[in-house]
Amino acid sequence: MASESLQAEVDRLRLQLETLQAKDGSALIFVGDYLLKRLEQLKVTKMFGVPGDFNLGFLDLVEDHATIDWVGNCNELNAAYGADGYARVKEHSLGVLLTTFGVGELSAINGIAGAFSEMVPVLHIAGVPSMAQQKSKPMLHHTLGDSRYDAYIKAAEQFTVAQGIITSKDSAAAEIDRVLTECITRARPVYLTLPTDIVYQKISSERLKIPLSRLPPPNDPDVQAFVLDEIVKLVDEADDDIVVLVDACAIRHDVREEVNELIKKTGLPVYSAPMAKSAVSESSERYGGIYVGSISHPEIKEKVEAAKLILSVGCLKSDFNTGNFTYSIPLSRTIEFHSDHTKVQFATFPGIGMKELLPQLTSRLQPAKKLFPVPPFTAVLPQENNDIISQAYFWPRVGQFFKPQDVIVAETGTSSFGVLDIPFPDKSVFLSQILWGSIGWTTGATLGAAFAAQDVGLGRTILFIGDGSLQLTVQELSSMIRHNLKPIIFVLNNDGYTIERYLHGKERKYNDIAPWKWTGLLGVLGDIDGSKSKSYTVSTKQELSALLDNAEFADAGKIQLVEVMMPQLDAPQALARQAELSGKTNAYVVV
Amino acid sequence: MASESLQAEVDRLRLQLETLQAKDGSALIFVGDYLLKRLEQLKVTKMFGVPGDFNLGFLDLVEDHATIDWVGNCNELNAAYGADGYARVKEHSLGVLLTTFGVGELSAINGIAGAFSEMVPVLHIAGVPSMAQQKSKPMLHHTLGDSRYDAYIKAAEQFTVAQGIITSKDSAAAEIDRVLTECITRARPVYLTLPTDIVYQKISSERLKIPLSRLPPPNDPDVQAFVLDEIVKLVDEADDDIVVLVDACAIRHDVREEVNELIKKTGLPVYSAPMAKSAVSESSERYGGIYVGSISHPEIKEKVEAAKLILSVGCLKSDFNTGNFTYSIPLSRTIEFHSDHTKVQFATFPGIGMKELLPQLTSRLQPAKKLFPVPPFTAVLPQENNDIISQAYFWPRVGQFFKPQDVIVAETGTSSFGVLDIPFPDKSVFLSQILWGSIGWTTGATLGAAFAAQDVGLGRTILFIGDGSLQLTVQELSSMIRHNLKPIIFVLNNDGYTIERYLHGKERKYNDIAPWKWTGLLGVLGDIDGSKSKSYTVSTKQELSALLDNAEFADAGKIQLVEVMMPQLDAPQALARQAELSGKTNAYVVV
Repeated sequence: MASESLQAEVDRLRLQLETLQAKDGSALIFVGDYLLKRLEQLKVTKMFGVPGDFNLGFLDLVEDHATIDWVGNCNELNAAYGADGYARVKEHSLGVLLTTFGVGELSAINGIAGAFSEMVPVLHIAGVPSMAQQKSKPMLHHTLGDSRYDAYIKAAEQFTVAQGIITSKDSAAAEIDRVLTECITRARPVYLTLPTDIVYQKISSERLKIPLSRLPPPNDPDVQAFVLDEIVKLVDEADDDIVVLVDACAIRHDVREEVNELIKKTGLPVYSAPMAKSAVSESSERYGGIYVGSISHPEIKEKVEAAKLILSVGCLKSDFNTGNFTYSIPLSRTIEFHSDHTKVQFATFPGIGMKELLPQLTSRLQPAKKLFPVPPFTAVLPQENNDIISQAYFWPRVGQFFKPQDVIVAETGTSSFGVLDIPFPDKSVFLSQILWGSIGWTTGATLGAAFAAQDVGLGRTILFIGDGSLQLTVQELSSMIRHNLKPIIFVLNNDGYTIERYLHGKERKYNDIAPWKWTGLLGVLGDIDGSKSKSYTVSTKQELSALLDNAEFADAGKIQLVEVMMPQLDAPQALARQAELSGKTNAYVVV
Repeated sequence: MASESLQAEVDRLRLQLETLQAKDGSALIFVGDYLLKRLEQLKVTKMFGVPGDFNLGFLDLVEDHATIDWVGNCNELNAAYGADGYARVKEHSLGVLLTTFGVGELSAINGIAGAFSEMVPVLHIAGVPSMAQQKSKPMLHHTLGDSRYDAYIKAAEQFTVAQGIITSKDSAAAEIDRVLTECITRARPVYLTLPTDIVYQKISSERLKIPLSRLPPPNDPDVQAFVLDEIVKLVDEADDDIVVLVDACAIRHDVREEVNELIKKTGLPVYSAPMAKSAVSESSERYGGIYVGSISHPEIKEKVEAAKLILSVGCLKSDFNTGNFTYSIPLSRTIEFHSDHTKVQFATFPGIGMKELLPQLTSRLQPAKKLFPVPPFTAVLPQENNDIISQAYFWPRVGQFFKPQDVIVAETGTSSFGVLDIPFPDKSVFLSQILWGSIGWTTGATLGAAFAAQDVGLGRTILFIGDGSLQLTVQELSSMIRHNLKPIIFVLNNDGYTIERYLHGKERKYNDIAPWKWTGLLGVLGDIDGSKSKSYTVSTKQELSALLDNAEFADAGKIQLVEVMMPQLDAPQALARQAELSGKTNAYVVV
């Protein structure tokens, strides 16, 4: 690891030197192809987006590329969601989105902001007018009519960590490398403009020989040694009464393996925050379930909060990820590991990143002498005296349906809350947008996730989405059919926005939606002869169970949509509790 | 007019005084209700948007309001398009969009930018966290996770002419009035944040007694007199060899009537740019058709460019509105009337707006002595020896189907180009997005237009959209069904993005789309029992004609969708010519 990290640093420095020396030795390559070559090196196989008049030339190169396929989404927001979902499942790579000037890129901006918020590496390429046009600023279509050609860049600056504004072929390669490096090392979206007249300009391909690295810069060895001593001292004092709490950045900043090694060696109990569900194996005996502040299961809450020391890996303390900020873990008992710093109790150590620190810590620690008991994380099917598919029944029941290596995608709302307390099989992957919470995101994300699952050898992609949310982005089901993907889509039909009814306006009409014929969707959106898809409605526990037990269904040989009829005002316990807390904070008080 | 304009000025000054004096005499009203009252005064009857946790309290007030209805769109971009379409048809009012913090408002931003570009008055209200939260900046869902609570405002600043950031009840009324005034006087979108804790705070309703006015400030009388003299002199010298050229801002800045009066009195020939189609009556003998630079019909081009003097009203010289900047009209022969300035040949007169100037000019001018001939603007049905529904056949044929007071909406692409050369009946209204050109816009815009048409007593709403474009925003058909609107929707099924094939990549796969079962859409998206809608496919000239001649169809008693099978590589002449010019400019040259 240390030598990999040093090699990455050497490569970065070489690239900086290249930029300054402007070496120009080797074979020439189109700017557009340079970009594609970099994406290929980073193992990108899909490009999401919508064609538009300022990106068509580049699209010729994409279409002709041997290993990168053009997805061609129904709209740009869905495409951005697709790139995000792809990046989450395809670790060590990134998602790529291509849009056109103004109209296209702005339609995608919520998707990019979501990737920023949730820390997902997405490259947003905007095809823009030629440099001549950017200088003379004519009133082209897709402009604001007032010559402000930089307005879209200014908007993008708010939601990306780097912007590569290509203005000449001379700086194009360095700009591409710079934003891609920012994207993959910081796990955040970046923005790149590609003018129509620069795509086909030829530049040196010399830089391509030096790979881009996603490894962070090496930690300072002296500081790291000091930090390690401090941590080991606290661990020793805690006398094995320690829990590991894994959170979002353990996934985003790629330390899952490091955490698993730590647990394997020490035998410490491990819990996860909602955003880290599936980061550590939920079938492990040392895994205790989801800690989410005061809305945790009482047993989990007690175990985590009573520990003498918490090793907190990649924490992200957002409202829905912490039971509305109800963590009861004092800093004096916490060590926080982050991608670019470490906190030991009250002291912060900038520059000491966990990717390098965690393995060193593992090598310093001994197996725990006392194995503190971890109550098993299970979900029991409740006995209910009715046929209704309640939330309390549904989630444990589908839990029995999950298989190892499933990719499980849960929409914000009843789905993301409901699935939390269900144990996942080994090597499954969980996708949800717990911080950003943009409803409709999962439709696009499922498309991207299903593509990535093929690439990395994962199994089925299973989506849980409410009827209200699916309406926002429904057309992307069409892209799944078109590309012959085979997700299983559970549409929770509870007649409107149930999460919002819990927050406010339970009986209000504004939380209603139009009723759709859900089982007719796949036929209309592309499976015209009915051979590529299958749709079902289940209204009772028996129907649901029978379907889940059907081997052909479980085998996911074609895209399948299951409309699940559920009561309008039923919600998972966790959602009801969160809504109660959140509702208090956001109350509309008459003053 | 002059006294109305003065009254408006008096009202504006009174409101400014109120702001400074902070009068607090009369009955108290919730901030949320104050806003609704202002919208009611401005004749708003519909609010577009999607519910979200930071706008639910305000939505209670909207739902309880007697004359403003909540639309409840399928997603925010469609909602923004809806508000835009509503504002275009409902003159002297505005469109209103309500979204939630972050996720909602950003999804709508392309729609707002389009309203900015095309000059449409839209108020975008974002429900935002309470002031306490805005100060302490917790990591709430829908935030970027880095405390930048102002990021969305910064994005909105790029695409709105005013931002009302409400931070206390004391300034709320003045902020609301300020942004609404900017919105309606400048015909551009504005942005307003509504914190959850301020909606229900009580403020004085005193200011509501003074109405907001959309009239521009009065012109300086001395300068105006001078300008009038200059214009009259040029008119006299031109010896009746004058044409009036109407453009976008004649509609946006509300001088249609003034232009019609001018034409009626003088008998001058009048032409319009694409963006002003339907601004003047196309059945008038003095109306000559569409002038669009070098891609105009040769006869029109000759008439316009040969005139000694051009009275250009509200011109907006964008690429697609000018035949790719091929106007051949020297400034020395042009007088340009604008909303806030006038140009007489080479001289600019700031502050002399056309709303007040045009009627004065009309009163100074005499009827033309020589009526220069205007070749009639007609569209002849071509004789073709095949069954195919060609573009050349389709547009004149549907032209015969149009009735007075139809609202005709044409999507960017084949539709917007194809319909240009078809004369519209009297009092029909044309909607298209010729400058912004965001594909998919018309689906939402048709929803808004159909609502507004009911309000203002217009007739049928007729949409022309390509299969590629409809995929972007298709779910909004559901809102039409839900609200019992009855547009006629022509889906031009030509198997992909034909406009783009003309620009670049004629045979490329990236211009393909997934095939949908178009006639199944309305059934799936809400007309579950089939009683509210009807769908058709027409594949031949005969089928098309028979349908258009069917009285029940023409009567538009329910929502109807017509799939029109057209050849993939057929395009209206105007599009082919524009694409040729535009393609040259944007060429992807291999250097």
